[in-house]
Amino acid sequence: MTFLFNSDARRRTIFADAFARELPDVPFTMDAATVDPDAVRYLISWTVPDNLARYRNLEILFSIGAGVDQLRLDAVPANVKIVRMIEEGIVRMMQEYVTLAVLALHRNLPAYLAQQRAGEWADIAQLQAGSRRVGVLGLGQLGQAVLDRLKPFGFALAGWSRLPRWIEGVTCHHGEPGLEEMLVASDILVCLLPLTEETRGLLDAALFAKLPEGAALVHTGRGPQLDHEALVAALDRGHLSAAMIDVTDPEPLAAGHPFWPHPKIILTPHVASVTQPATAARAVIENIRRHRAGLDPIGLVDRSRGY
Amino acid sequence: MTFLFNSDARRRTIFADAFARELPDVPFTMDAATVDPDAVRYLISWTVPDNLARYRNLEILFSIGAGVDQLRLDAVPANVKIVRMIEEGIVRMMQEYVTLAVLALHRNLPAYLAQQRAGEWADIAQLQAGSRRVGVLGLGQLGQAVLDRLKPFGFALAGWSRLPRWIEGVTCHHGEPGLEEMLVASDILVCLLPLTEETRGLLDAALFAKLPEGAALVHTGRGPQLDHEALVAALDRGHLSAAMIDVTDPEPLAAGHPFWPHPKIILTPHVASVTQPATAARAVIENIRRHRAGLDPIGLVDRSRGY
Repeated sequence: MTFLFNSDARRRTIFADAFARELPDVPFTMDAATVDPDAVRYLISWTVPDNLARYRNLEILFSIGAGVDQLRLDAVPANVKIVRMIEEGIVRMMQEYVTLAVLALHRNLPAYLAQQRAGEWADIAQLQAGSRRVGVLGLGQLGQAVLDRLKPFGFALAGWSRLPRWIEGVTCHHGEPGLEEMLVASDILVCLLPLTEETRGLLDAALFAKLPEGAALVHTGRGPQLDHEALVAALDRGHLSAAMIDVTDPEPLAAGHPFWPHPKIILTPHVASVTQPATAARAVIENIRRHRAGLDPIGLVDRSRGY
Repeated sequence: MTFLFNSDARRRTIFADAFARELPDVPFTMDAATVDPDAVRYLISWTVPDNLARYRNLEILFSIGAGVDQLRLDAVPANVKIVRMIEEGIVRMMQEYVTLAVLALHRNLPAYLAQQRAGEWADIAQLQAGSRRVGVLGLGQLGQAVLDRLKPFGFALAGWSRLPRWIEGVTCHHGEPGLEEMLVASDILVCLLPLTEETRGLLDAALFAKLPEGAALVHTGRGPQLDHEALVAALDRGHLSAAMIDVTDPEPLAAGHPFWPHPKIILTPHVASVTQPATAARAVIENIRRHRAGLDPIGLVDRSRGY
């Protein structure tokens, strides 16, 4: 019952130490060349290895990242459980990034950066937080954790999810009609959705048109959810005021893309949240324990919905 | 017992309405030309009016701003109480700004902005919040409120004040020796101090030298506390990594000043926190009630320490 680690060497040491300490009866290796393929019960990887079929006794495929859109789910045998990475480190980094982004847009930072470049000293009319409506797309663990951090600032908070949710202090919307209800009342829209066939291209011209005049966007979902040209058009005609974008399609963003020099866009290179090896190793070990105890792992992917 | 309002017209309406509703027995005016000077018991202003002596029965001079460094304290008769503006709106805006600034420096935003300008897509090694030491200079109402907002992110928090303080979850230092203790252990230093003779020029080359290599600065105190040339020098030789600066000396910052184009400085035009008329009116009315009940107003200035 070997654990095969197919990720980078820096993370490997931390994982290996945690396994040696916490799960000594599960041999840990990152050497796919010499491992007995029949012994491999657990595999952690970013993508599905081409030779996955050789691990005939595989029970769980762990994604090293929070998303599984990079995993070809249909290339994984039906009896293998696929598990997203849900770990404290990812959650904390996403809380930091989205709070930073929402505050930056709330406090007009893109406009102040443009003024700084122009050598201009002038204050911009400032809305109070209680009058700023923040809408979060995606109310899973990340969405809820982000809303927790935004709450103390007094923003008017709303959220949207596929299925109904109830979160204290947050106006929750769901399903197709709920989406429009939230969009028309979101001054700052935050996208934290997983990439699925339903969310691909969701952030398009039609969606931007539903947002109030002057609204702003935080995009920390996945690049293919965003119609890049539609965003530039909405910013350029002034319907949207600014955006903070962490994910693009493709990544890295192509040289010469209009996002790079755009005065209303703050662009970061997919760094909002990355798996932290120490907390990730704990989460994986805990999931192996659950699995062996007959429980579903936390973050078990539902293949029918794609995440 | 008239209240004389010497500030801008936009705020005036909100103050006038609040007084009419809450303190109908205190006549409210902003017309210094026609008011009976002997009737004026309360005056709100940004600076000390040249003709202050004509208000012989003045009891309280309210500052419209959080600081009183712009008031010539010695031009105010000793029997007149001077009161700083301590109101919920100022506090909330400062919480927002400093959280934004600390998160921006923690998450390497100045470096990512420089990369964006250069068309470069590359992640920068990221410290976890628990390993990031944030030190706050000034533990009055603003400093404590700011620390409250930073706490949930898990930063290693410290604070410094003139006199000893105890704040849960914050390593508190005080006095001259305490200052050095905190500086050597502050990866992000936040200045929220009032401007006094002791704090003028405090943020100088000697102070920056005490900070750890790569430290960053958030300056939301007052411009004359900062040696602007020393900051540029510390950034240029790489001892400091970045700064977010809201106050300068003079304001507006002169055209051609090296802060404007500096790639490691985010500059905002003294907008971190401004008095919000609705909450400020409530605070002033509450202080008049306290004063009439024989209590000290909240924010009473101690002339010997200058704030």
